[in-house]
Amino acid sequence: MSTPDRVKIADIARAAGVSPPTVSKVLNGRSEVAPETRERVQSALREHNYQRRPSGKQPRAGLVDLVIKELATPWSVEIIRGAEDACREAGIGLVVSAVHGAQIDTQRWLDNLAGRHSDGVLLAVSDLEPADRERLDALGVPLVFIDPIGDPDPNIPSIGSTNWAGGLAATEHLVNLGHRRIAMIAGIPTLLCTQARLGGYRTALERGGITPDPDLLRFGDHFPPSGYAAALELLDLPEPPTAIFAGTDLQAFGAYKALQSRGVRIPDDVSIVGFDDLAACDWVTPSLTSVRQRLVDMARMAVNLVQERGGEAGEATRVELATSLIVRDSTAPPAG
Amino acid sequence: MSTPDRVKIADIARAAGVSPPTVSKVLNGRSEVAPETRERVQSALREHNYQRRPSGKQPRAGLVDLVIKELATPWSVEIIRGAEDACREAGIGLVVSAVHGAQIDTQRWLDNLAGRHSDGVLLAVSDLEPADRERLDALGVPLVFIDPIGDPDPNIPSIGSTNWAGGLAATEHLVNLGHRRIAMIAGIPTLLCTQARLGGYRTALERGGITPDPDLLRFGDHFPPSGYAAALELLDLPEPPTAIFAGTDLQAFGAYKALQSRGVRIPDDVSIVGFDDLAACDWVTPSLTSVRQRLVDMARMAVNLVQERGGEAGEATRVELATSLIVRDSTAPPAG
Repeated sequence: MSTPDRVKIADIARAAGVSPPTVSKVLNGRSEVAPETRERVQSALREHNYQRRPSGKQPRAGLVDLVIKELATPWSVEIIRGAEDACREAGIGLVVSAVHGAQIDTQRWLDNLAGRHSDGVLLAVSDLEPADRERLDALGVPLVFIDPIGDPDPNIPSIGSTNWAGGLAATEHLVNLGHRRIAMIAGIPTLLCTQARLGGYRTALERGGITPDPDLLRFGDHFPPSGYAAALELLDLPEPPTAIFAGTDLQAFGAYKALQSRGVRIPDDVSIVGFDDLAACDWVTPSLTSVRQRLVDMARMAVNLVQERGGEAGEATRVELATSLIVRDSTAPPAG
Repeated sequence: MSTPDRVKIADIARAAGVSPPTVSKVLNGRSEVAPETRERVQSALREHNYQRRPSGKQPRAGLVDLVIKELATPWSVEIIRGAEDACREAGIGLVVSAVHGAQIDTQRWLDNLAGRHSDGVLLAVSDLEPADRERLDALGVPLVFIDPIGDPDPNIPSIGSTNWAGGLAATEHLVNLGHRRIAMIAGIPTLLCTQARLGGYRTALERGGITPDPDLLRFGDHFPPSGYAAALELLDLPEPPTAIFAGTDLQAFGAYKALQSRGVRIPDDVSIVGFDDLAACDWVTPSLTSVRQRLVDMARMAVNLVQERGGEAGEATRVELATSLIVRDSTAPPAG
């Protein structure tokens, strides 16, 4: 990507009305630059389409950073597993950081990241603040999103799942068993992955000649209590569903608890399908039919991608790994 | 720890009949030393009680390494969470490595560790090969074991749980509810944590005036299938138990599945207590009474410990964090 008329740091400094060392500080993600100065430099970098020169002198640390939204979920284990595996094969170390809740102390984290000269950053978070994204960009470290559940920045490569196809397969399985009143307990409505799974659900209903009943669609977050609450609401309908497609396995487990608390048998009275294929699907009673996401493979692929990219900007890529339906004991034809 | 008559590398080289650079290579965990030469140097280091001089020149990487046996378990998430939290607070990075199955490519990993000048190593593994332990020692990096389920080396600080007290509390809870036929589905018999939990179980029976029935004691690994198999065996006894203490929550979940497959009701027919207090205890049906281990706190404490120790050998410590019994819906008095 090196072009003969490459924009230089001096050009940026002139355009932004600052000294070249200040531009370097911004590029290196250092904190001792006033926010408004930083903003001015970043605008100039954008306007001039500054491409950081891959520096041969920069020591390669043999480290890749993984930033994960929340460690206390079964998803994060899978992602760490895949990333660790690929890093070990490549002979490099994996640095794991969590973004607890909404706020990460981004500046401190960026300072650390710059300090350790990480080879790349895997982002298993739904999104980044635009300012943070720019600071990461300015560091010149390759970025890859893993399973972005938000609206992935088209300029950053990302690896996800075929959520739409997964929602379709889950719902078609229920349709093919003969169910007509099929509910969905979806995730957070604003997230792309929720919308894609919901889209697959709706298409399967249409293909089955079933008119969607708005009463049968509920939203929650991705955790058991929201599945529990939604399932109770569904059971209280004048005409309850005979099958439920849950947006995540954890929501499905919450629905299990709700149904079992009412003495509703799974799958005799109500069938349930989950999404994720967590290890727990095998040992809950009955074992849970679920859509498998290849989280381990996604993370492996992300490590390989940041390594291939090196310091180069390259073309942004969007990869979606295929999902597959794993049929277990929680689904059956509706009761006669 | 600097003593006036400190043993020098040259002394070790003379004693081992090698050159000083060879001693340095061994000290730095480098791979290009023949195994028998390494062994000779390590013997000399031991005999002369060589203490590595804390080097002021060595750059601090701002990294702590966590070595974990198996990433695909709910325990590892908790340990990573605690370690990440403490590292973030300290402004340092956490490098996560897994030992898959029995074999880690130790030499390569040690080379990487030496290369990145890690501030310390947290070992969440049951044990280390003696040779690996010596090479880690030789690197002069502080080590701490987290929840060692094997036989912790008394020379290395370790942080665990009060497993015996946990086993006692779980079983006394069942005794106090009125149970007399109380089974235990224990973990791997050779592990110290298993022996400690089993010891607590036996003491609680004794204190309750109950003679242990060897038929009611089963062993497995720590995963659901072994709990499933053991529970079926217990149900097939001429006089089955009315309560089961499982060595891990995952084994308890396996036992749930076995009981439910036979139509045995929990807790009406059989009470169950687990150990670990995983998040899943809340959402299984019925929710699982369990012994809480403070895994997050253990990992946090381990990070603080390696940081305090710095390059110093210091005194080895053994800390056991208290467990506590969390009573939920899986335990009740025996049926009339």
